[in-house]
Amino acid sequence: MRMTDLILKKREGDALSKGEIEFLVKGYVSGEIPPYQISSWLMAVYFRGMSFEETGFLTRAMIGSGKVFDLSSLAGPLVDKHSTGGVGDKVSLILAPLAAACGVQVPMMSGRALGHTGGTLDKLDSIPGYKSVISEDLFRQILAETGFAMTGQSQDVVPADRLMYALRDVTGTVESVPLITASIMSKKFAEGAQSLVFDVKCGAGAFMKTREAAEELAVSLVETGRSLDRKIVAVITAMDEPLGRKVGNFLEVEESLACLRGEGPADLMEITLRLTAWMVVAGGIRPTVEEALDLCRDRLADGSALERFLRNVTLQGGDRDLLLERENRARAAFSLDLTAGAEGFVESIDSYALGMAGIPLGVGRNKTEDAVEPLVGFELLKKRGEPVKMGEPLVRIWSEGEETGKTVRDMIASAYRIGGVKPDSGSLILKEIKAL
Amino acid sequence: MRMTDLILKKREGDALSKGEIEFLVKGYVSGEIPPYQISSWLMAVYFRGMSFEETGFLTRAMIGSGKVFDLSSLAGPLVDKHSTGGVGDKVSLILAPLAAACGVQVPMMSGRALGHTGGTLDKLDSIPGYKSVISEDLFRQILAETGFAMTGQSQDVVPADRLMYALRDVTGTVESVPLITASIMSKKFAEGAQSLVFDVKCGAGAFMKTREAAEELAVSLVETGRSLDRKIVAVITAMDEPLGRKVGNFLEVEESLACLRGEGPADLMEITLRLTAWMVVAGGIRPTVEEALDLCRDRLADGSALERFLRNVTLQGGDRDLLLERENRARAAFSLDLTAGAEGFVESIDSYALGMAGIPLGVGRNKTEDAVEPLVGFELLKKRGEPVKMGEPLVRIWSEGEETGKTVRDMIASAYRIGGVKPDSGSLILKEIKAL
Repeated sequence: MRMTDLILKKREGDALSKGEIEFLVKGYVSGEIPPYQISSWLMAVYFRGMSFEETGFLTRAMIGSGKVFDLSSLAGPLVDKHSTGGVGDKVSLILAPLAAACGVQVPMMSGRALGHTGGTLDKLDSIPGYKSVISEDLFRQILAETGFAMTGQSQDVVPADRLMYALRDVTGTVESVPLITASIMSKKFAEGAQSLVFDVKCGAGAFMKTREAAEELAVSLVETGRSLDRKIVAVITAMDEPLGRKVGNFLEVEESLACLRGEGPADLMEITLRLTAWMVVAGGIRPTVEEALDLCRDRLADGSALERFLRNVTLQGGDRDLLLERENRARAAFSLDLTAGAEGFVESIDSYALGMAGIPLGVGRNKTEDAVEPLVGFELLKKRGEPVKMGEPLVRIWSEGEETGKTVRDMIASAYRIGGVKPDSGSLILKEIKAL
Repeated sequence: MRMTDLILKKREGDALSKGEIEFLVKGYVSGEIPPYQISSWLMAVYFRGMSFEETGFLTRAMIGSGKVFDLSSLAGPLVDKHSTGGVGDKVSLILAPLAAACGVQVPMMSGRALGHTGGTLDKLDSIPGYKSVISEDLFRQILAETGFAMTGQSQDVVPADRLMYALRDVTGTVESVPLITASIMSKKFAEGAQSLVFDVKCGAGAFMKTREAAEELAVSLVETGRSLDRKIVAVITAMDEPLGRKVGNFLEVEESLACLRGEGPADLMEITLRLTAWMVVAGGIRPTVEEALDLCRDRLADGSALERFLRNVTLQGGDRDLLLERENRARAAFSLDLTAGAEGFVESIDSYALGMAGIPLGVGRNKTEDAVEPLVGFELLKKRGEPVKMGEPLVRIWSEGEETGKTVRDMIASAYRIGGVKPDSGSLILKEIKAL
């Protein structure tokens, strides 16, 4: 088999076979196939796409390139969730304990903030004492004890994806639906999930800007999963403004606690409940999403979801009492408000611009080696559709430096649009695509 | 400027600027841009193409990557010819002295046989004593003295093309018209040509299999040349059977001598005269191709073209007398005939298959390091449209080994198709595209 022939086959629009895809992935990881052949194949994939079966072959070959977590000895179905990334998206912090409280095992391996999107690990690290990256043994132990555990992605998992992603990043081949599909799915399956629920965000602040692009990715995830005999649900959700009201590492932990008490903002609750309910269905615990939603609401109402979260905090080294003591109190040194320059309604909030405004504060980072701040961030006092009066506060900002706060205020100001007409609002759940 | 952005720009179908193309070529040659970025850009070019202006920028940047021959001190216009490669194509050996006899300066740098196509250098080397690769000084001296000189391509010329071609070869990006255009044109211009005439062959045995593909390349060559303010003529010629009757290194020298005496086969003469006439027009020596054809016929008739050829042989170290003594006599050790297995007309001769049949004989080679034989080859006694009787010789084969001859006879047999109807024949000149 010659890699040149595989490139030509893809260039002509044909699907590669299982053996050909395995040859390619193994050869790349072992160094036998040089990066310049992989990158021209990647560009051919960008233009020609891949069949769902072929994407499944790629997913499987990538899984086989490294360590695979076998968590099947745990009681209960292993279901994980993946989001394409949003601003103010703290869904994982609420969904994991809630799903666990419903009987699902959630082996959650997350990433850090980069660019305009936040990172679950950075949020968890803002809890006093919390260790967001733990050993495999501890991870298994906590997972067995509370039904969910949080950690970083292991370097040993799917080395093919790490190599290939680094190459895609510098060869103009990131935006390819089958490559994105195989990258996401290979990691989640290698990390031990049996079934997956996806939050495919759609809108100006999301990776998928249009409804069409979001649907294409959702269908690819579900159909590739089907070709691998996996249960997959992809929920397409609107990302026309940040999720919830709080953006910032500790601020988002606080808002998650509020949600776990059943007091969270409506948009965040709607999406979290829906995604968790699908995990419950994919895990075979309830047959329909309606029954699963009822179960989720019960587990919030009876406090068991909150209790799971707090038990996890303790098990991962966090100080539960200090966390609750600091809740709604611990803030960065400086605060200032952005006030409305006009009367009317909030027409839109550019979540990409808001996400970028978090970077100078220290909510997120530009480069992976940059540090983040736990207590900085902002609270959106007015969200889309809400009426505002001239001079009324729109956003409260907390920063560690006074000048930074002012810079960020100007950045946020440009993200808000106030108009004379109240914009329409509807469900954030745009579409659901399933292989169950 | 970042290479990743240039890849994305091309991927989205935009044309790169002059500065961007220069950055890319310089960066590649210097090693600052890694091959994996170049190869994904090459694949994006395969899918998106390049504008003629952009192809001109690439051509110019590639010329600038290495040594450029300045031959402008020579009296007379510098015009060269390039063929996309055929079987039995000895046009260069006739055209160069003929154009020189008409007043054109022809700085001809050629290649060697590879795969099914022959090489001008290998043919010249079959002349006793002839040195087909000579020093730059000698090349200039002979060119000044006889109006044409023959040598191999210098390693110092267009290193960007050598690097890029090697990469294209293993990354599935050979078959891209703008890349082919820039590769061909950059070498010819760097070697000192001011104007160019192209023989774009079209047919089963040619690089361009269809009329459409041949026209696309012809238009690209001419329009890219126009964007560089060069005079270019592309002649699309039919390659439905080998050119002339003789295939083999010394055999083709013999057939070239016959043509220079005005006694060559009609198909070879037609194409050679037309291409040479366009060189005469591009060189400004005659205003129309008809007048240029008259001049070419005169220079054949008065023996001056033949005399130029023989003077060149002497100047390049060859033995003129021995050449003429061996003409039509020197042959490899064994000969055998392929005879007709049916009565009728030669319907077609697969020139690709014939070219491949030359490899075991030693007419050509599979790998660049293989040696060739001067005196082997074959003569097509019957060509397309000619009547044959059962058992009549179709092809005479000369080989250095008896078994090889038989193998080759079988290969050639499968290339001939004999049928009951005489096929239509017409001009081999299918179309001419010009920027003058």
